[in-house]
Amino acid sequence: MSFWKSLFNGQSSSASAVTAPPPPLNGNGQEGVIETKVFFSTNKEIDVYELEELCDAVGWSRRPIRKVKKAIEHSFIVVSMWEQRGQYRRLIGFSRATSDHAFNATIWDVVVHPDYQGQGWGKSLMRQIIKELRSEDISNITLFADPHVVNFYRNLGFRPDPEGIKGMFWYPNSR
Amino acid sequence: MSFWKSLFNGQSSSASAVTAPPPPLNGNGQEGVIETKVFFSTNKEIDVYELEELCDAVGWSRRPIRKVKKAIEHSFIVVSMWEQRGQYRRLIGFSRATSDHAFNATIWDVVVHPDYQGQGWGKSLMRQIIKELRSEDISNITLFADPHVVNFYRNLGFRPDPEGIKGMFWYPNSR
Repeated sequence: MSFWKSLFNGQSSSASAVTAPPPPLNGNGQEGVIETKVFFSTNKEIDVYELEELCDAVGWSRRPIRKVKKAIEHSFIVVSMWEQRGQYRRLIGFSRATSDHAFNATIWDVVVHPDYQGQGWGKSLMRQIIKELRSEDISNITLFADPHVVNFYRNLGFRPDPEGIKGMFWYPNSR
Repeated sequence: MSFWKSLFNGQSSSASAVTAPPPPLNGNGQEGVIETKVFFSTNKEIDVYELEELCDAVGWSRRPIRKVKKAIEHSFIVVSMWEQRGQYRRLIGFSRATSDHAFNATIWDVVVHPDYQGQGWGKSLMRQIIKELRSEDISNITLFADPHVVNFYRNLGFRPDPEGIKGMFWYPNSR
């Protein structure tokens, strides 16, 4: 836990970098070791086509690029997660939060590339966005979790329906 | 239902006005009939001290005025509800929503003065903020409902935990 803890309690910065183990050698084992890093960025100037590729990889429905751009622009915090191997940089995770910049934030669009799932990178991404929100003095951090990720968020300190508070969605046709 | 329906389906405007029955005559019954209207406004230039009085009336905890101002400023939509009797104007309801301006909105701080509860004004206020959000092409309207108001929101077309989606809150001390 010490890695996550240090990441979480670290100084607020727009990017944190950690060095991951080098990739396994392939073929005849003659390659040199390529340094591999995973880092986070809060830069909103993200390539939305690269983001779309990431969302495609997890099977999300396509959304109009224009609206995705607008949503990112008007999100309070955007945290993207990148893997860098030598000169090559790849978007491997993304999350963003809407907020009133004072009390509340709601986290949306948490996505981790399937190649990086199950290895703690999702937790790392979430801890990073929580850290960013806390550094902005946001005390009420919320989200809406699909059933299969409720336990993932629970392990990060999120509680479902605390004191009976219910997340609700408006359906125009159900009125 | 025709009144609510017309309010809800009406053209998008920053304020809607309806005429309520005149107030009951008091004392010796000599007063003239004072016209009473309830209207809505999306103006963010709201007197936060008046808002604080309204929140006090329903027993909410006090919040720092500076943060309340900031939250209103960074809300996507603010809808206030006012009663006007002759020259006298009174804030009787309030709601606001955060949003990414593209896909999602979350409604916060829905409050109706106790004198006006149980008469349909809360529903009217909610229909107004939903109308404003829909007019901005927001398709995913969400909120977090305290247990005693889940049915109030259900009657407005909100569904708790649709497809098992859970509203979750982060608690720093539960980690």
